[in-house]
Amino acid sequence: MSYKLFQEIKHKIADINYAIAVLNWDQETYIPKNGNSRRAQQISTLAGMAHKLSTSKKLAKVLKKLKQDARLSLTEIKNVKLALKDYKKSKKFTTEFVMKESKAISTAFQAWIAAREADNFELYIPALTEIVNIQREKAEILGYKEHPYNALMDQFEPGATINEIDSLFKDVKEKLTPFTQEIFACEKPDNKFMFQHYEHKKQWDFGMNILAQLGFDFDSGRQDLSEHPFTTSFGVKDVRLTTRVNEENFYDMLWSCIHEGGHGLYEQGLKEEEYGMPCGEAISLGIHESQSRLYENNLGRSKAFWKANYKKLQEIFPENLSNTSFEAYYKGINLVEPSFIRTDADELTYHFHIMIRYEIEKKLIEGSIEVKDLKTIWNDAYKKYLNVDVTSDKEGVLQDVHWAHGGFGYFPTYSLGSFYAAQLFNKAKQDIPNLEAEIEAGNMDSLLAWLREKVHKHGKYFTAKEVCEKATGEALNFKYFLDYAKAKYSEIYGL
Amino acid sequence: MSYKLFQEIKHKIADINYAIAVLNWDQETYIPKNGNSRRAQQISTLAGMAHKLSTSKKLAKVLKKLKQDARLSLTEIKNVKLALKDYKKSKKFTTEFVMKESKAISTAFQAWIAAREADNFELYIPALTEIVNIQREKAEILGYKEHPYNALMDQFEPGATINEIDSLFKDVKEKLTPFTQEIFACEKPDNKFMFQHYEHKKQWDFGMNILAQLGFDFDSGRQDLSEHPFTTSFGVKDVRLTTRVNEENFYDMLWSCIHEGGHGLYEQGLKEEEYGMPCGEAISLGIHESQSRLYENNLGRSKAFWKANYKKLQEIFPENLSNTSFEAYYKGINLVEPSFIRTDADELTYHFHIMIRYEIEKKLIEGSIEVKDLKTIWNDAYKKYLNVDVTSDKEGVLQDVHWAHGGFGYFPTYSLGSFYAAQLFNKAKQDIPNLEAEIEAGNMDSLLAWLREKVHKHGKYFTAKEVCEKATGEALNFKYFLDYAKAKYSEIYGL
Repeated sequence: MSYKLFQEIKHKIADINYAIAVLNWDQETYIPKNGNSRRAQQISTLAGMAHKLSTSKKLAKVLKKLKQDARLSLTEIKNVKLALKDYKKSKKFTTEFVMKESKAISTAFQAWIAAREADNFELYIPALTEIVNIQREKAEILGYKEHPYNALMDQFEPGATINEIDSLFKDVKEKLTPFTQEIFACEKPDNKFMFQHYEHKKQWDFGMNILAQLGFDFDSGRQDLSEHPFTTSFGVKDVRLTTRVNEENFYDMLWSCIHEGGHGLYEQGLKEEEYGMPCGEAISLGIHESQSRLYENNLGRSKAFWKANYKKLQEIFPENLSNTSFEAYYKGINLVEPSFIRTDADELTYHFHIMIRYEIEKKLIEGSIEVKDLKTIWNDAYKKYLNVDVTSDKEGVLQDVHWAHGGFGYFPTYSLGSFYAAQLFNKAKQDIPNLEAEIEAGNMDSLLAWLREKVHKHGKYFTAKEVCEKATGEALNFKYFLDYAKAKYSEIYGL
Repeated sequence: MSYKLFQEIKHKIADINYAIAVLNWDQETYIPKNGNSRRAQQISTLAGMAHKLSTSKKLAKVLKKLKQDARLSLTEIKNVKLALKDYKKSKKFTTEFVMKESKAISTAFQAWIAAREADNFELYIPALTEIVNIQREKAEILGYKEHPYNALMDQFEPGATINEIDSLFKDVKEKLTPFTQEIFACEKPDNKFMFQHYEHKKQWDFGMNILAQLGFDFDSGRQDLSEHPFTTSFGVKDVRLTTRVNEENFYDMLWSCIHEGGHGLYEQGLKEEEYGMPCGEAISLGIHESQSRLYENNLGRSKAFWKANYKKLQEIFPENLSNTSFEAYYKGINLVEPSFIRTDADELTYHFHIMIRYEIEKKLIEGSIEVKDLKTIWNDAYKKYLNVDVTSDKEGVLQDVHWAHGGFGYFPTYSLGSFYAAQLFNKAKQDIPNLEAEIEAGNMDSLLAWLREKVHKHGKYFTAKEVCEKATGEALNFKYFLDYAKAKYSEIYGL
């Protein structure tokens, strides 16, 4: 009976949170301009109610009781344990602190917009300083071992530590840098064919067909348009993707569609019967990102994938692609080059962008650097790691919204995702002997089935580390990403 | 301070109810098939929370205090008074009753679907009987003067009584029937041109242009597609319309678009600063319907309206309309003939459909007839008032969903709406001397401004009766509808 009561409370919390997700989704997709004025208030009211339930005595009481209940199944035990952890975390924050943070975020977001418009980082300094102070306070409230940044990362990637992330970025610096230097010295493949006119509707239809091919279930989800592509879910049976179509840049739709598709497949692969329970939720942002990046990069930028799809694409856009051979297309979409903007980066240099942000965040939180110096620090780092001269704040330190949202500790999950993806994809290839041939034939079912079995269906029953070890036989190892990168790009660049 | 607290509580209730409206809207427009499985639960959780707040001691306390507050403005006094009425009504129902009703509705809706599929009213009898019993119980709980049906009607049309509605339908029977008999004896205008192929996108664009012409503000609202057209709102600044496009029947989109447009204009004309308060809400379903019907019928089926729009329509669909003269078009869209289906009926015979339902509802609630006899009663009434032989339950007693939803007392508001519309439109013409010419020139602004001033902006500050008297100088009078009908259709039919 107690477990049932626990479930009822968690279902209610999930109902409210999914309702918030619907309101957010609508705000990003269909809301008319003036609708925004009341929407934030509506969402805030619901969030308040969800928080009240999440910190209620009723929940605490039932969790306490269940902790000593010997009749629970393993899954039930895990749900109780993780819910208790969430409960304790929620209880740490006073309403005062939550409101202070929410106000600072709102101010910082406005300041970020204004600073971007003026292309002037100075305008962002006061608000961002306040955000950093609050994040430092937050780390103290949450508590941590060794480094306050660990407390912040834990919100997005439970259990992640700077020791682990430092070690990964040490590999990036020591092993990936020399390889990308070799690439930068080579002749660049041409990718101009991606920047011709690609008609909106044809792009959309192509993307929808790709999603269907990947195994996205349109009876349990849909895709819409939004300015910034994202994935959200209102339950396993209602997963919403969005994409963006730029008629002069085919990359935009293509990569965002496959990337969000990967996120969506994960959400659709969670257990419906664990609705609202930890074991029905995604493990972490890193694992979520491993799914989107596996689909976007390891699959979506692979030869096999385009053997299945390039002819179709050429038929849809003969005016743009009939003179581009398969080889030229494959090389073009895998162009590696230094750049300013993280979201436009190729799958190798991407990690330099993340590393720079990670180093800055860590130092801001430990207090060894200050917000006022960020622009110089940023530009120096871009010179050092990517050899580019940042001349615009908008294309430099002001390019990401994450900090304005208080998302410190979020960036590393992007790199973690790629590294997990490489390791998982490597193992999937071993486990499914015909995988390459299947993909070339446009059949992605075995890959999805493997991911469902190894990752999706477990929800939070396993941690990120556990899932990685169970699926691949070992802990996260940068070697797999490096091997993947070297094999693929050595061929492309003739190294 | 007390009034501010009162506002805060009402804002929260509104936030939740508007969130429910977003979830409902999404369910009717974009939800993927399997998403429905959790959506009802999510809505029910939010509804439970709204109900809890609406019946909270905190609200009762502040209302009690405000009742004796001499410093309140007239609007504030009205808000307190109406909120107190709502509070008392909400408190009358036990959670047990609410859940019983909600379960019965759910069962009845399923039974209605199944009965329609089988075209067999028998399958619907048990579930509908249960609904009627619950409605009778509800009337007792709500309390009433003279007739239990008054209690049910009051939910949709505050203050309406069977004396008033009986008297209106007496007029329908005695004054409208002989006139429609005259019309039935005339030669029928042709309207076959409406049932040719009208391309989806062109229809959609035409409808959107009409909405803009009527004054619908697309910065504070939008239109989408749904199977059953409806209007909903998430606040004055976010009003959502839906329409339906049938490529073989131009009527579908045309009338639903203008009809829902009328509802939407009312919602957009309410006071934003009265968000969540009674004076920021529509008066009643009858007044809401007066706005949709005024736009759909009195304006949308008028000569002046098509003088502004027919040429454009001909240009968009020359293949269907180039051989149809303005006169032929105008007559065709105003064809009056007996029919089976309420929603397809012309603006005159429509009221026979409503009258039949009203008589049946009233008798079911007073217990003078039984559900098991409904089919015979229905078919006899259609023979008597419309001289048609109903041969299919689906096109007869099973055609409307309202009863399955427990909506007894709802139907009369449709006729009330038309009668209010005729009276309001008549007065608007007197107050705006150039109205006809403006409409012919495609300028609908004066009409909207008049409705805003006389009806929209007041919210519930005035009752339906008060608004009618203030706007037109007298109580609702069937004469205006009859005069309108006689003038218009005598000309069309040469009577």
